[in-house]
Amino acid sequence: MIGIIMGSQSDLPVMEQAANFLKSLDIPYELTVVSAHRTPERMFDYAKSAKERGLKAIIAGAGGAAHLPGMVASCTTLPVIGVPILSSNSIDGWDSVLSILQMPGGIPVATVALNGALNAGILAAKILGSGNEEVAEKLQTYQDSLKDKVLGTVDDIKTKHPNHFDI
Amino acid sequence: MIGIIMGSQSDLPVMEQAANFLKSLDIPYELTVVSAHRTPERMFDYAKSAKERGLKAIIAGAGGAAHLPGMVASCTTLPVIGVPILSSNSIDGWDSVLSILQMPGGIPVATVALNGALNAGILAAKILGSGNEEVAEKLQTYQDSLKDKVLGTVDDIKTKHPNHFDI
Amino acid sequence: MIGIIMGSQSDLPVMEQAANFLKSLDIPYELTVVSAHRTPERMFDYAKSAKERGLKAIIAGAGGAAHLPGMVASCTTLPVIGVPILSSNSIDGWDSVLSILQMPGGIPVATVALNGALNAGILAAKILGSGNEEVAEKLQTYQDSLKDKVLGTVDDIKTKHPNHFDI
Amino acid sequence: MIGIIMGSQSDLPVMEQAANFLKSLDIPYELTVVSAHRTPERMFDYAKSAKERGLKAIIAGAGGAAHLPGMVASCTTLPVIGVPILSSNSIDGWDSVLSILQMPGGIPVATVALNGALNAGILAAKILGSGNEEVAEKLQTYQDSLKDKVLGTVDDIKTKHPNHFDI
Amino acid sequence: MIGIIMGSQSDLPVMEQAANFLKSLDIPYELTVVSAHRTPERMFDYAKSAKERGLKAIIAGAGGAAHLPGMVASCTTLPVIGVPILSSNSIDGWDSVLSILQMPGGIPVATVALNGALNAGILAAKILGSGNEEVAEKLQTYQDSLKDKVLGTVDDIKTKHPNHFDI
Amino acid sequence: MIGIIMGSQSDLPVMEQAANFLKSLDIPYELTVVSAHRTPERMFDYAKSAKERGLKAIIAGAGGAAHLPGMVASCTTLPVIGVPILSSNSIDGWDSVLSILQMPGGIPVATVALNGALNAGILAAKILGSGNEEVAEKLQTYQDSLKDKVLGTVDDIKTKHPNHFDI
Amino acid sequence: MIGIIMGSQSDLPVMEQAANFLKSLDIPYELTVVSAHRTPERMFDYAKSAKERGLKAIIAGAGGAAHLPGMVASCTTLPVIGVPILSSNSIDGWDSVLSILQMPGGIPVATVALNGALNAGILAAKILGSGNEEVAEKLQTYQDSLKDKVLGTVDDIKTKHPNHFDI
Amino acid sequence: MIGIIMGSQSDLPVMEQAANFLKSLDIPYELTVVSAHRTPERMFDYAKSAKERGLKAIIAGAGGAAHLPGMVASCTTLPVIGVPILSSNSIDGWDSVLSILQMPGGIPVATVALNGALNAGILAAKILGSGNEEVAEKLQTYQDSLKDKVLGTVDDIKTKHPNHFDI
Repeated sequence: MIGIIMGSQSDLPVMEQAANFLKSLDIPYELTVVSAHRTPERMFDYAKSAKERGLKAIIAGAGGAAHLPGMVASCTTLPVIGVPILSSNSIDGWDSVLSILQMPGGIPVATVALNGALNAGILAAKILGSGNEEVAEKLQTYQDSLKDKVLGTVDDIKTKHPNHFDI
Repeated sequence: MIGIIMGSQSDLPVMEQAANFLKSLDIPYELTVVSAHRTPERMFDYAKSAKERGLKAIIAGAGGAAHLPGMVASCTTLPVIGVPILSSNSIDGWDSVLSILQMPGGIPVATVALNGALNAGILAAKILGSGNEEVAEKLQTYQDSLKDKVLGTVDDIKTKHPNHFDI
Repeated sequence: MIGIIMGSQSDLPVMEQAANFLKSLDIPYELTVVSAHRTPERMFDYAKSAKERGLKAIIAGAGGAAHLPGMVASCTTLPVIGVPILSSNSIDGWDSVLSILQMPGGIPVATVALNGALNAGILAAKILGSGNEEVAEKLQTYQDSLKDKVLGTVDDIKTKHPNHFDI
Repeated sequence: MIGIIMGSQSDLPVMEQAANFLKSLDIPYELTVVSAHRTPERMFDYAKSAKERGLKAIIAGAGGAAHLPGMVASCTTLPVIGVPILSSNSIDGWDSVLSILQMPGGIPVATVALNGALNAGILAAKILGSGNEEVAEKLQTYQDSLKDKVLGTVDDIKTKHPNHFDI
Repeated sequence: MIGIIMGSQSDLPVMEQAANFLKSLDIPYELTVVSAHRTPERMFDYAKSAKERGLKAIIAGAGGAAHLPGMVASCTTLPVIGVPILSSNSIDGWDSVLSILQMPGGIPVATVALNGALNAGILAAKILGSGNEEVAEKLQTYQDSLKDKVLGTVDDIKTKHPNHFDI
Repeated sequence: MIGIIMGSQSDLPVMEQAANFLKSLDIPYELTVVSAHRTPERMFDYAKSAKERGLKAIIAGAGGAAHLPGMVASCTTLPVIGVPILSSNSIDGWDSVLSILQMPGGIPVATVALNGALNAGILAAKILGSGNEEVAEKLQTYQDSLKDKVLGTVDDIKTKHPNHFDI
Repeated sequence: MIGIIMGSQSDLPVMEQAANFLKSLDIPYELTVVSAHRTPERMFDYAKSAKERGLKAIIAGAGGAAHLPGMVASCTTLPVIGVPILSSNSIDGWDSVLSILQMPGGIPVATVALNGALNAGILAAKILGSGNEEVAEKLQTYQDSLKDKVLGTVDDIKTKHPNHFDI
Repeated sequence: MIGIIMGSQSDLPVMEQAANFLKSLDIPYELTVVSAHRTPERMFDYAKSAKERGLKAIIAGAGGAAHLPGMVASCTTLPVIGVPILSSNSIDGWDSVLSILQMPGGIPVATVALNGALNAGILAAKILGSGNEEVAEKLQTYQDSLKDKVLGTVDDIKTKHPNHFDI
């Protein structure tokens, strides 16, 4: 089971990309709102009880001065994946990226790209798949499907813009 | 009484500038190490008990993904002053500045310049002085002394580099 | 009484968030336009008379090369809170943020996030509340309301995106 | 078993911090040089065979236009941890950070802080520990030791800079 | 013959500016989709066979953590021109620019401006023209046409905004 | 007479703000298109003949890798004012700002803010006014009008957002 | 007469490059310390009396949140040249550059490169030279000397690194 | 024959890396100083005569507001390779990188990494090798030698830091 948390309900459109990926691989998850700054006790309880409640990894998304991923990581031995979110009044996302990425020695957060919740979901699956062959195979199938999608556009693009051999 | 906390003992050379300023104005303070990521419970206890222990403001310094000031601010109604610290492996201080400054609506941190612990101390005194005429007068004296120091260099610089009136 | 000033009338939609917060706590304030560059004498008069006119703190917002908060701070012992504002032709807000934040030693400005006028209002209240139990209690109520708002979305989000337990 | 790779032998002083952490927890690892740009075939072979050779996760460090972590991730279902390294002629590390972090949807890299190889090692252990109680317990012990180290400096700092209660 | 590749079909509107320029000079090209991360084998095959298939230069465009130009360059002696593309969720294009530009010593990529596919096409023609007088003459004609276009606006602008000689 | 030049006709909406200011002070100017990269000879001729044609200062605006102001400055003893312009495909204006501002020792360009053509016009007038009392007086009148405009909004803002004195 | 002012005596090593250039052209100047934040009245008096004291332009250098050039410009019709100075605790000079450059419409500062005091001196001379043929000729001589210095290194470099014609 | 030019003799230690690479492949080159800003006529003459003098490509290095590569490119149909150089008073190299990279449509500069003169030399050889099999073979040999150098460190690193298989 993967825990997916976000600082505010407004992060849902980004964060549910992680959830949808996990669902597509039939990996169970729970998804809820936990705010580091507005509900600090809830955050602590969530992080501290995560392991015994059966979570295998936590995906945490937040914008601006994004403390949620790092603070959760400080209270659990589970791997924590951080998703920087581009929120309004952010300075182009730099605040969120750096607040999540630049954790001090001892407390890592596995950071993905700005708004990269899909990749957070995949990374959570990879963590499970590291010790679970069934999940690993599903991931291989997914990765193959990415390849197929690219190859599927090869003919398309040839129609849209034919090669030019006229010299 | 002002609380001065820092994420690591290595921040002391910067952070004691705040302490020294307060001492010069005879404002009591306590100074200690509280790490958001390595001692989260201690941080919560510190922040939650700060007001009843008689603190009037908290100065918190941290480097990198600096969550200490914002997390402390989330657990107290006291004003919290954040000092971004330029630590090794920081990306030029941007990580620390943005992690402290860009707090979400509801939970302000009064941020000062990179390594600006002196100004954090002055700001804490200004907060006290807002309701305490004696402190306000000391601050006026300090501000006057800054002016005097500048004026004291005016003759000096004239000697080092005389004006040029020769055309 | 809190003073709220801004460099231009166009800053009002951002800056009145500070005013509205103070009003919600029944904290008196005055709000006006003071431009460092276009009305420098007015700025000096405002800053120098602020304390004797009974102000306890000043909130100053400005965009671009934002000199208003720092210059006001240089002329008063009151705590000055600076609000960087994202104006047109700003370079993504960096100019305003750095012009306000990076004050030299001796003259602090309590800087909040880009467009963070709400937090400036809260910070002003925290400064008052530092020496006024009634205000401190209102702030505690406000902080609790933030928590309640987050908790109020927990069920909501469960409806919008149910957990997935199907493996 | 964890694979630790780096683009150049000059990255060893940073990258062996990951190795040393794993060794301290008695987690087996292999460490070698694999360059995306100078030995692309070797990189492909390494990444493609990693899973069947028994690796559970790969830590890849590189500087500048750092393609090693992302390219390895594109060839395996194993979780890949990327370590941006501050090399000479880097533009303050931004090139390395962004080349590793900003991976497109589908191919995540778990990015840690600039030069954050220690955290990469811890993250690898967390991934193992997600499905292995023995490792998880060692991680808990490690996390407790961090706390103890901080607490150990509390008295120290009191000696170096005593509190000031003189008003 | 010039090879034009891009990481995704969504890059076509930018990348076909390179193709259209080459067509206007009657320089043959082929244009297709090759993804470093989703079709790594296809990328390797493309890069390794490019020279023997008669390509004289390769133009590669990609966004975000853009590894395509650099990885292709690592597998061929042909000159590779990199086009950073501003994609959604990019951090203002910095990720793409730095991932392409900051290649390590030994493996150059000729980088052009953000979204600068037109210039990539011109640069490819300049490479051909370096050893082919006919192409060089066409480039001179093109460069002259740029001048003529500017001169053609001189009278225009005089009408839109007449000079002012009234003092 | 002031010369106003720009790299492309598309810069006119920004650059004519300089012209309009000069016209409002009855300062003669000429305005035209000169491209450093597409009409280098025209640029050289313009710059070299500027002084003998009676120009007193040159305002040059350009976007992206903006070489026009600096190259013109290298060919004349007249003061050159550079206006960085935010063009499409610019990286947030940084390219234009730095290409104009960071001139090497010996060849200054008086740089104004991004899209700051109005200020370029005022600066040109200040340069004239430095030796011409009539222009200086007009500038004083203009500067006073700025003050009046701000003061004119003071009552306005009081209506829009009344002060709050209710505690 | 040119006024040269700086925020602190520590800026002298940079700022006297402006003075030395002016002296080399026998242009009179006065040089002194004026701090916007520590001596605001002195700054106002300096700026307001500058014109009647016979100054023709003002060069103002400052670091960090550098308000001196902009504030001086707000109090005079003289052209003001701003020199961003890289001071300790600056964020790589960005704070100083943006605080000086990004002035609002109405109050221009002629900004030169980081630490570019030499260019500030030259620019001041160009402003004088705009209406003074003697100064203009000296500037032409200076500009010619730059050319001669470059040409003087042409043979030198041929000795240090001979051309290679061996194929 | 390749032309290598630089804005100042102080750029030689960086720029001769290009020359040394070309020499190692027995590709003839000439190397000299050409300053866009201090010797603009020399720059124009150099660029305009380059092709007829037999050059096949030009490598131009410059720091700060680096106009040399772009201006040379505007006066020739030859491919121009730009080398951003980190000079003193540069803002971390960003000025040089952006001034060279962000050329407008029509005038490309093939930009390499900051201080990447070695790669500029290799790129020039790749341009020649595009139409010259002998050079292409030498480049293949060089690229193979890079691989060999990496492989040569594999055993080395095993000695310095042995793998750990002890669990």
